[in-house]
Amino acid sequence: MRTFLLSSLSILFSYVAFVGSSAFAAEGPLLGFDAAASDNQHALETEFDSHIDRVEMDRWMRDFSSEAHHVGSPKGKENADAIAALFRGWNYEVEIAEYQVLFPEPLTRELELLSPARYTASLTEDSLDEDPSTSVIDDLLPPYNAFSIDGDVEGELVFVNYGTPADYELLDRYGISVAGKIAISKYGGSWRGIKPKLAGEKGAIATLIYSDPADDGYGPGDVYPTGPFKNESGVQRGSVMDMPTYPGDVLTPGIGATGDARRLPIADAPTITRIPVLPISYRDALPLLEAMGGEVVPREWRGGLPITYHLGPGPARVRLQLEFDWKMVTAYNVIARLPGALYPDEWVIRGNHHDGWNHGAADPISGLVALLAEAKALGALAAAGNPPARTVIYGAWDAEEPGLIGSTEWAEHHAAELQEHAVAYLNTDGNGRGFVNVGGSHVLESFFNEVMRDVEDPQTGVSVQQRRRANLRINAGSEKVRTEAKNRANLRISPLGSGSDYTPFLQHLGIASANISFGGESAGGSYHTMYDTYEHYSNWIDPGLVYGEALAQVAGHATLRLANAPRLPFEFSGFSDNVSGYIEEIEELAETMRSETEADNQNISDGSYDLVLDPNKTFGPPIAKEPVPFFNFAPLKNALARLEQAASSYDSVIADGAAASARENYLLYTSERELTRQQGLSGRPWYKHHIYAPGFYTGYGVKTIPGVREAIEQRQYDQVAGQIDIAAEVLNAMASRVELLVEE
Amino acid sequence: MRTFLLSSLSILFSYVAFVGSSAFAAEGPLLGFDAAASDNQHALETEFDSHIDRVEMDRWMRDFSSEAHHVGSPKGKENADAIAALFRGWNYEVEIAEYQVLFPEPLTRELELLSPARYTASLTEDSLDEDPSTSVIDDLLPPYNAFSIDGDVEGELVFVNYGTPADYELLDRYGISVAGKIAISKYGGSWRGIKPKLAGEKGAIATLIYSDPADDGYGPGDVYPTGPFKNESGVQRGSVMDMPTYPGDVLTPGIGATGDARRLPIADAPTITRIPVLPISYRDALPLLEAMGGEVVPREWRGGLPITYHLGPGPARVRLQLEFDWKMVTAYNVIARLPGALYPDEWVIRGNHHDGWNHGAADPISGLVALLAEAKALGALAAAGNPPARTVIYGAWDAEEPGLIGSTEWAEHHAAELQEHAVAYLNTDGNGRGFVNVGGSHVLESFFNEVMRDVEDPQTGVSVQQRRRANLRINAGSEKVRTEAKNRANLRISPLGSGSDYTPFLQHLGIASANISFGGESAGGSYHTMYDTYEHYSNWIDPGLVYGEALAQVAGHATLRLANAPRLPFEFSGFSDNVSGYIEEIEELAETMRSETEADNQNISDGSYDLVLDPNKTFGPPIAKEPVPFFNFAPLKNALARLEQAASSYDSVIADGAAASARENYLLYTSERELTRQQGLSGRPWYKHHIYAPGFYTGYGVKTIPGVREAIEQRQYDQVAGQIDIAAEVLNAMASRVELLVEE
Repeated sequence: MRTFLLSSLSILFSYVAFVGSSAFAAEGPLLGFDAAASDNQHALETEFDSHIDRVEMDRWMRDFSSEAHHVGSPKGKENADAIAALFRGWNYEVEIAEYQVLFPEPLTRELELLSPARYTASLTEDSLDEDPSTSVIDDLLPPYNAFSIDGDVEGELVFVNYGTPADYELLDRYGISVAGKIAISKYGGSWRGIKPKLAGEKGAIATLIYSDPADDGYGPGDVYPTGPFKNESGVQRGSVMDMPTYPGDVLTPGIGATGDARRLPIADAPTITRIPVLPISYRDALPLLEAMGGEVVPREWRGGLPITYHLGPGPARVRLQLEFDWKMVTAYNVIARLPGALYPDEWVIRGNHHDGWNHGAADPISGLVALLAEAKALGALAAAGNPPARTVIYGAWDAEEPGLIGSTEWAEHHAAELQEHAVAYLNTDGNGRGFVNVGGSHVLESFFNEVMRDVEDPQTGVSVQQRRRANLRINAGSEKVRTEAKNRANLRISPLGSGSDYTPFLQHLGIASANISFGGESAGGSYHTMYDTYEHYSNWIDPGLVYGEALAQVAGHATLRLANAPRLPFEFSGFSDNVSGYIEEIEELAETMRSETEADNQNISDGSYDLVLDPNKTFGPPIAKEPVPFFNFAPLKNALARLEQAASSYDSVIADGAAASARENYLLYTSERELTRQQGLSGRPWYKHHIYAPGFYTGYGVKTIPGVREAIEQRQYDQVAGQIDIAAEVLNAMASRVELLVEE
Repeated sequence: MRTFLLSSLSILFSYVAFVGSSAFAAEGPLLGFDAAASDNQHALETEFDSHIDRVEMDRWMRDFSSEAHHVGSPKGKENADAIAALFRGWNYEVEIAEYQVLFPEPLTRELELLSPARYTASLTEDSLDEDPSTSVIDDLLPPYNAFSIDGDVEGELVFVNYGTPADYELLDRYGISVAGKIAISKYGGSWRGIKPKLAGEKGAIATLIYSDPADDGYGPGDVYPTGPFKNESGVQRGSVMDMPTYPGDVLTPGIGATGDARRLPIADAPTITRIPVLPISYRDALPLLEAMGGEVVPREWRGGLPITYHLGPGPARVRLQLEFDWKMVTAYNVIARLPGALYPDEWVIRGNHHDGWNHGAADPISGLVALLAEAKALGALAAAGNPPARTVIYGAWDAEEPGLIGSTEWAEHHAAELQEHAVAYLNTDGNGRGFVNVGGSHVLESFFNEVMRDVEDPQTGVSVQQRRRANLRINAGSEKVRTEAKNRANLRISPLGSGSDYTPFLQHLGIASANISFGGESAGGSYHTMYDTYEHYSNWIDPGLVYGEALAQVAGHATLRLANAPRLPFEFSGFSDNVSGYIEEIEELAETMRSETEADNQNISDGSYDLVLDPNKTFGPPIAKEPVPFFNFAPLKNALARLEQAASSYDSVIADGAAASARENYLLYTSERELTRQQGLSGRPWYKHHIYAPGFYTGYGVKTIPGVREAIEQRQYDQVAGQIDIAAEVLNAMASRVELLVEE
């Protein structure tokens, strides 16, 4: 630790210096407000902040995370009821929206190394004297991957690194197939559900996933309870349902899982894995990996266990038995409504899930207590005569962990109303300490920059925007981003892939959405383990919930501004600027793939690879690939040019801060719908947004302009032109909408 | 293993395809030969090749590496005598040149962890049943670093990563100093002698160096005897004398260490370390590192032990006791001479050391047996009536391991004669399997490309040049190098830093030199350990010595061509092209340092760092640095332009392959002397070459145009202009020499 004195002095000094030299602190009225309304809004926010009570948030966290509270658990129901009671106490209209959903719980989990040695995996996390919560284990779900199929298989192990498409390409070069084998994969590199999906596509009979200590264990830091990182017994649970196809209840795609909904037979549910999959600790992985032979893994694949990693196949042979109770459980979404005083039919929705895999102090309670603090404050403002102009709806979702189920079912169930009334959806989930992260629809980029500008970072006293900007200037991986952070007035917000409850709102319904959190100074390994406890959180992640308060301010101010803005603070120049960047990226992607493919093919055909490869090793040349053709990006760029023009005209329209008509606001908040098409993405019609989607082979990781990008990445060259036309179509639709707004 | 059939077929196919498409296989007469002489030379080389006998080389290797044979050991003397006897048998004039040199051997080596736990380091390598040589341990030197000073110190440990200047800059940012502490460093990242040198400059009281298993152990592959990599007991020995100041006997800088030479008192020898230093195994390092506390190391510093690495200082506290027997020993250089039939006063020198740290099968015997096979073949050619035109001198050096001592003393002792008569010095040392590596004076780049073009790779049947080219095309780290490998007629040879016996010839005397080896398919961890045995080498490095034969062909043909060429095959366009690249690099270096310094200074002064750094950690901002001024590189570029012009004119002169006059050949082979200055480099006058030098803070790693480059790197901005003038002066001198050659 730096001494308090030194650190405080340097912060004070730096604050003065920074603010003094800042080029972007000039403030006019808020976007969508005139000067008077803006002052009034700022005053309301000051009042709002005074209601945020970290001590109360801490008590809520302790209560909600005292026991395991996954969907279907007694504590889960108890928490839902308690949340509902809180909202009622703050004068909200409260409903508990119930859905009947499929939720598999493990009956049998057995993993044994059969040869060359024998080892029976413990599959159990250690309770720790230092953390009493880890002895509260009634109703605790053991380590498993939800929506793994049942299975009883025996086979040799193959090490597949992170189990990504690139990893399998490399395995191909070693002449190694997982067909008929059991893939053992590290966590990381892609969303976990991709690992069994791809292994299954390649013919594997099962997948084991473990947390390698180099990535998530003693490598990054001291392990729990000495430090926050994953100890040798920790296992990351998590869903492996095929969320890039559709999230939510596996039996009711596209419709709400009400009691009487029409359901698929379990055997037909396409998002349940094709092969059994089980997560294990690095303690259990060690004997398995140690027993493997075959070629030594490539340098980039090595992990942190004290062994030489080998690819296999075998000689390590394991048996995996998994059996699940495929039961129906009730998901309890708490829906709390504060009616808008002026525009009750315009809904600002703010959500966070309440179910956890276990105690779930970080995930999701650290975000939930911010939401509750915000709701309480908003209720207090309303009680004091300052109700929101628009209706604010809080959603505390159940069953997020197994696959965004609670939020998805509610969004599907109320799809038509939501598309008509929803202004925006603001999401939070687990929170940490450090720098603000905002991801979301780029029509909200300017808006969120104003929000970030007006919230103070609790550690440094500058705005959370300034702190994030400083971090990008110094730590961003690319020179381009470092320079841009210095020069671009607005910080970019990230495009959203998936991984939390915004997905049904944004990508299924086309509702402008955002996801907000803090992080960067609270790394650890408790995620989805038994160690995600109140004790872990308050020792290592955000002691005193100081960043919990900051989160409540960012999300709360955003909610309040969206609820009150006389003109909805949507803006299109930021959107088109980001889209322009994505188009450039895709052109570069094609260019890079073209030159790499050309070089590879030449080195294959002229025999260079045969000269280079060591005949004592099995590593062979890559397979020659079809040359990458040139694509016609003109339709996309023409649509972009039109959009840029319209966006710029709209910037002039809103410069005076005048209020918008009801029709203008409607055109504004439904503009994001223009980026969706009823047909959805190719091969996954549930995903209707054509600018943002989770990657089909990355899972949570975003693919922007996904139709075009994935067609190129997956070398489906004959699809590219059609996808370019579709993406141009949605951009043209957005341009039309903005032109319409300019005309209004 | 790929099946033999497949691999052979694909090689055959690829060979045809490759040769068919090759743009660079067109052959005219050899450089320095006319057509007839060229044909004659090729015929001689075919005859030469027929004398290379791998079975005999293998027997020599087994004999010479049967016991430890370091300088001063009985087996070392026995090997010298045996080598001399072989040369005599092949009708060479043989002399054993003896020098009396200081060579410390350990008396006491004790390392103990005192707290928080106690652990006494074993400091011993395990003998293995699988390798009988590891039980032949009479006269085996235990793990130590030669030319460490004596010491008995106690202190806390600080982890310094690789102990490079950049590592200490980062430690500074953590507020951690090694002053009064014991630095523990990984092997790698710089030459080992830099570690205690820099630690000593920073005030450390001792240095421990260990091989981290992520770099050199189970990380890269299976450990000995299962595989070739370093097992938990293996320790890399090695010299830590300050070779970047001067190599060779520490008591007789600049003069031969003959019996009556004037010697420094040991206490005044500047190349003995200032602090004690000891190398240890990762088995011994583990308890020490595990006992450390303080901040967790940065990501890039992590190693492969199953622990969280911490920076310290302490609480781990160790005691290190080292005492050496500072004895005088005799170094026996075997010098064998085959007089030239036409130009006996022009000497082609070919060397390899014969001393090893232990059994030394790879280092140095694998190179020595190639040299012996070459010498035998050359002797046979002479006996059959084809003596070399020039005198060929073979040097089998002693005492290379402790600091290039045998070669340096001989070169210093015979400096005047060598500068007058030496045409070139060709060095080999340990050899491996895979791709040919040639480093050396760039006046020999074209020459070596012809040599590489005419030797067949034993694994693929193409030339060793083609195989290297294919490797660069596919595996080179930078796009620029990959593209160049495709398009540039000649492959570049690497500039030489230090690390073997070419240093006194090239960098002290200005004799054009080269170093030749094969590698890239024989990675392992036996270097300077007890496991560098015949068994290890013949199992894992080059079974059957097939690449030993290829090495004898490359080095032998090179020797023979240099000995016979009617015009010495020196060439200057390749030289100037490489120098041009070095000047570009240095300009880019200054540019990069300038923009990085500017960005850092701005982020410091405007407080960005204070906003970004985690107040819970000790990591602070960097220190603001003096801005990097703009430098006038014009003198260097003008000299280069003149050199390029002259080189191009000389290319026309030699195009017809006409023989050179004695004076022309003299001007050619002494041209490299023009790149030296009697004053030497700033602060290290022993190093007289101004284009190639080992880095003052990298050790073995080369610094081209070192005066200019190191002044910039070390931010001694006021030195840069003077150094540019000096470098321009040597380039102008070389240009004058080439102009003179054109006029002749």
